[in-house]
Amino acid sequence: MPTPDHPHPLTKGHIPLTLGHEFSGRIASVPSSSSLKKGQAVMVDPRLFCRDCRSCNSGQDNLCPKGGFLGLAGSSGGGGLSEYVAVEESLLHPLPENVKSESAAVIEPLAVAYHAIRTPGIDLSGLDVLILGAGPIGYAVALMLHAENPRNILISEPTARRKAQAEELVQRVIDPRSENVGEVCRQVTDGKGVDIVFDCAGIQAGLNDSFDALATGGYLVEVAIWETSVSAKSSLVVQQLIPQLVIPFWDFFKKEIRISISFCYNQTDFREVMKRLEQGLLELILMVKGMYAGYERMVTKRISLEDVVKEGFEELATNRDEHIKILISPTRSTS
Amino acid sequence: MPTPDHPHPLTKGHIPLTLGHEFSGRIASVPSSSSLKKGQAVMVDPRLFCRDCRSCNSGQDNLCPKGGFLGLAGSSGGGGLSEYVAVEESLLHPLPENVKSESAAVIEPLAVAYHAIRTPGIDLSGLDVLILGAGPIGYAVALMLHAENPRNILISEPTARRKAQAEELVQRVIDPRSENVGEVCRQVTDGKGVDIVFDCAGIQAGLNDSFDALATGGYLVEVAIWETSVSAKSSLVVQQLIPQLVIPFWDFFKKEIRISISFCYNQTDFREVMKRLEQGLLELILMVKGMYAGYERMVTKRISLEDVVKEGFEELATNRDEHIKILISPTRSTS
Repeated sequence: MPTPDHPHPLTKGHIPLTLGHEFSGRIASVPSSSSLKKGQAVMVDPRLFCRDCRSCNSGQDNLCPKGGFLGLAGSSGGGGLSEYVAVEESLLHPLPENVKSESAAVIEPLAVAYHAIRTPGIDLSGLDVLILGAGPIGYAVALMLHAENPRNILISEPTARRKAQAEELVQRVIDPRSENVGEVCRQVTDGKGVDIVFDCAGIQAGLNDSFDALATGGYLVEVAIWETSVSAKSSLVVQQLIPQLVIPFWDFFKKEIRISISFCYNQTDFREVMKRLEQGLLELILMVKGMYAGYERMVTKRISLEDVVKEGFEELATNRDEHIKILISPTRSTS
Repeated sequence: MPTPDHPHPLTKGHIPLTLGHEFSGRIASVPSSSSLKKGQAVMVDPRLFCRDCRSCNSGQDNLCPKGGFLGLAGSSGGGGLSEYVAVEESLLHPLPENVKSESAAVIEPLAVAYHAIRTPGIDLSGLDVLILGAGPIGYAVALMLHAENPRNILISEPTARRKAQAEELVQRVIDPRSENVGEVCRQVTDGKGVDIVFDCAGIQAGLNDSFDALATGGYLVEVAIWETSVSAKSSLVVQQLIPQLVIPFWDFFKKEIRISISFCYNQTDFREVMKRLEQGLLELILMVKGMYAGYERMVTKRISLEDVVKEGFEELATNRDEHIKILISPTRSTS
């Protein structure tokens, strides 16, 4: 988040800025050389990256040190809440006919989830997977995982609304407040434990559950952005500003656990998600498995731009656990 | 370490036990069906594992939940300090002619090091590598790394004797007490940082250095057995018994660091090390690089069994940093 003293290195923009980095739209104006057409519905990859560093040149544009997001970087081009926003053509993805424009904004968290499930670099088919947290990213990870054909997907989630929604999507939802997460994982896997954990919660209690629940040789993928940890809270005040993961040595060692962290997504990830949506792959798999779920169900409320403060920001601040995503529609049509 | 109340699950043995899990010897007695001969010099893979669990059946016999070591498990078969020890034939490796029996015991830490450098599962050629600590395992990791053809090997080591010895083996030795480890790593790598860290020190200060020194997309391999961490020491007394690694979130996240831990070695690792020793690969590479170093130089003192308490255990307790390995010779020849 740039400030007047530290403008964003790519956009040179700073606060105040127009928010919104998960958004779709329709083409309002396009150069004549473009293959896109005025009025066409598109999904936006909102990322900014330099295309000139070691990370960008190796396809890891998600790790560009100058990276940022439209809607967070203070670009003069605007953000998702602008009436118009300027986007590079290579970052626009035409919406397939089977993707409704009123749900397309949630494709962005699907890309986050896709990058996360690709992070271990292993074949997930036949594996037992635990997801910590059924918020937007946890839900999206579960959705994207089905196409990888794991054996079991379990979700640990304490809040009622999110639990109910997760139950439509995975084999077993665990309540970490009333159940022992590691024990349930071993019960479901004949004593083995889960092969992979995707931590979409970002709290120390979940990390402790992970090391208990993981099988020997298992894999932990951190997907959440951590805030303060239990360890930090019990320590100096200044450390509360630096989130920390506390890894219990013996479980880590004895089981030879591997740990990765997943940061955003790259261009390949975004294209792969668009391809899967166009193929209808996610819906098809869920249908075969008899699950009534889908990415559209991540949208738990729709509001208009005028109501964004009260029914959007304030609603999420006070009733966060009641929602996955609140979608905001602009007041004027740009088509 | 088994106790009378909890004998070892495989050997049923308990304390008191005969120590010694890093040892070579000569065959004193052998079944007629064996391809080994009486008097033959052999290196011992000292591990015990069940050969019947998921880990053993998948080649990860290092992760057998019932695993142990001759010399630590209280086996009636003895340990490295016994006059005789009973070993399964598949765990005996005939010494090649170019490996002297008076240095062979250090092959065990070479196997630990080999497993560590295989842990990331990536090609190390051309990469910049930092090793934390130049004790037995750090030194062995540096030795084994040369055969992988990395671009630079750096070692961070604070104590004088170990520093001097490491300087014969790697491009740059960093003193973490007087130098900034991350800055030196960036200087040596044109600002990039190191691609891999092998942590053979197991202390929080080294872990903090690692996250600073690593390049974007870098890999941290934990090789040391951690004792208490800085974080644990500042917390409750009971936590001092549980070593913990404290991972700083933002460096982990921004650089998308991967973390693995390396536990012991498996049968394939041991065979590969024996093969490299037989080929003289390590010596050849060091010679080409003009380095006067080798695995024999891990032996910093030789003593006889009668002197083991004063010149062995007590010497290591009081002058640990003066040594890499102290080798103990039995008083009687078993040949």
